[in-house]
Amino acid sequence: MSDLNVSPAQLSRFITATMQAVGLPEDDARTVGELMAEADLQGSDGHGVIRVPVYIRRILGGAVNVKPNIRVVEERAATALVDGDNGMGHLVMKRATELAIEKARTCGIAWVGSRYSNHAGPASLYARMALAHDMVGLYFAVGNANHLPAWGGLDMLLSTNPIAAAFPTHQEAPVVLDMATTVAAYGKVKAKAMMGQMMPEGWMIDRQGQPLLDPKRSDEGFLLPIGGYKGYGLSMVVGLLAGTLHGAAMGTEVIDFNNDDTSVTNTGQAIAVIDPAAFGDVHAFKLRVDKLVQEIHASERMPGVDQIWIPGEQSHLKRLKHLQHGIDIPAALTRQLDSVAQQLAVPTLADTPH
Amino acid sequence: MSDLNVSPAQLSRFITATMQAVGLPEDDARTVGELMAEADLQGSDGHGVIRVPVYIRRILGGAVNVKPNIRVVEERAATALVDGDNGMGHLVMKRATELAIEKARTCGIAWVGSRYSNHAGPASLYARMALAHDMVGLYFAVGNANHLPAWGGLDMLLSTNPIAAAFPTHQEAPVVLDMATTVAAYGKVKAKAMMGQMMPEGWMIDRQGQPLLDPKRSDEGFLLPIGGYKGYGLSMVVGLLAGTLHGAAMGTEVIDFNNDDTSVTNTGQAIAVIDPAAFGDVHAFKLRVDKLVQEIHASERMPGVDQIWIPGEQSHLKRLKHLQHGIDIPAALTRQLDSVAQQLAVPTLADTPH
Repeated sequence: MSDLNVSPAQLSRFITATMQAVGLPEDDARTVGELMAEADLQGSDGHGVIRVPVYIRRILGGAVNVKPNIRVVEERAATALVDGDNGMGHLVMKRATELAIEKARTCGIAWVGSRYSNHAGPASLYARMALAHDMVGLYFAVGNANHLPAWGGLDMLLSTNPIAAAFPTHQEAPVVLDMATTVAAYGKVKAKAMMGQMMPEGWMIDRQGQPLLDPKRSDEGFLLPIGGYKGYGLSMVVGLLAGTLHGAAMGTEVIDFNNDDTSVTNTGQAIAVIDPAAFGDVHAFKLRVDKLVQEIHASERMPGVDQIWIPGEQSHLKRLKHLQHGIDIPAALTRQLDSVAQQLAVPTLADTPH
Repeated sequence: MSDLNVSPAQLSRFITATMQAVGLPEDDARTVGELMAEADLQGSDGHGVIRVPVYIRRILGGAVNVKPNIRVVEERAATALVDGDNGMGHLVMKRATELAIEKARTCGIAWVGSRYSNHAGPASLYARMALAHDMVGLYFAVGNANHLPAWGGLDMLLSTNPIAAAFPTHQEAPVVLDMATTVAAYGKVKAKAMMGQMMPEGWMIDRQGQPLLDPKRSDEGFLLPIGGYKGYGLSMVVGLLAGTLHGAAMGTEVIDFNNDDTSVTNTGQAIAVIDPAAFGDVHAFKLRVDKLVQEIHASERMPGVDQIWIPGEQSHLKRLKHLQHGIDIPAALTRQLDSVAQQLAVPTLADTPH
């Protein structure tokens, strides 16, 4: 069985059908489908259609509310707190981001936080939404499983808590950073295990502090933060901003949503949007970002380095490639999705119209 | 000659006297003196009185404006852009932070950026100012010398661009992160050179990508970002937020202020202040931060680890110790400061009243 090549619209329609089949209203199902397909389109394939099985499992387990009353529970001129009513995170954070863009337009900056949200896909998805408005987006989230102890500790109290930042440009591809505060995201560990490969030193250590290289033994150790104690501090700060500030889960309250199909996660996220027009001419700002990108591209390179990448540039190229040639879904994943389709009595991905 | 033990007030008065001697108005000189002494008080000794010689040299060289017209040039409800008129960074960022606190009180969040500012000491100084108001402070700055190339590059287009974040607590010490986006700050490299010690692997590499261990050869290589390409991305994002957004220097525009006594730096910084009251009860928020701190402190420890530290905790203990026992100024630094005092015809640090 070879890889299945699908169009972004086909992917989006398939995901929408699965979400509708488990009870999401049509509009909500379509929003989730579009945002998840967008993740695959930009190459964030650990956060796209691959998540359908676990999302569906959790919805069927009663862990996620398919008809949430997503609402603003606290509000000031430049801030809001959105209670997601335990709905799909994509719905909660799309709503939060739209509100932040609106508020930033008048106030210059806005911060909209969530509580009782859920996993919402790649961090950059929401930061990027600001770009169409010539604004800067920043996103912070509490990861949905603790794989990181405090520096020197053994109890996993922190997660990969990601940061995303998106900056509009004029001629160049937008600058988009999307990173976990750990050296490797946990999805990469799972991918190594699936491929039967060892992990490089520096990804994980065991409880004695020794390098852990076998991804099949990953539950005997934990992820390493970037820059040692610095990444630990950064993960904690992101968690305080995205979770603790909003009354969402942090520390011992975080549940491992990959291994729990019934518990409410109370996930916290934050989107901050900055309007560059509040600091001067927007076009001039975009030209300054272009100039920095061009200076970096023109850098002298270290021996053996073919190209210097800007954050978000590889993702931008994947998007262009996928738009032209479609997205390849690995055979193993297609089999999993076929089995979900059968369970829900919806057409398989291959049978979904282009 | 042994170390000189001084009180924080003595340190502040000495710095104030040097600043007045080179032309700063009395109030401004006192503000700079207090903030620089505060840096030593909290243990940020690479950013306190040690900087007097270079600041004075640059002021005398005409690189810094001693009587700036610091003013708001762009303003919205939750944002402002402060033009520092090339004044001391401490004055610019104190003003910016006070404005951000005021705006956050009504809008929930505020972002105040600077351009034509200068080096302003440790990042945490400004983030911490939010704590007295039970608010959260975030600070970003463009470092004042490029020591970091893009990942895979050789041209040093980026700096150690630091991030600080401060969170109020109820019973626990406040959580305060203050970190460069490089593995080591450049001040640590200089300190190793002064002590005649080698650097650990991972701090710097040479132009072939090989580890550089001798700090005396530091100009043959460059600093490494935390987490490899991730830290490069983070440094770039911090620079875009603190510099490019505000029309301040980034990339090739950044000058090395340690080796240039005449050029205007056009330093950019940003302070963001979030009022937790915009998201619910402030006391409940502080208790949640306490709870996370307590969970981390109570973590099981890795073999050989005596204590698990919270970001800002060691700095907090240094502050308490310095308040009780005074601050020790190394003999070598005292000699440098004595020579500045002689040049400016002000009392030496030792002769400054307690």
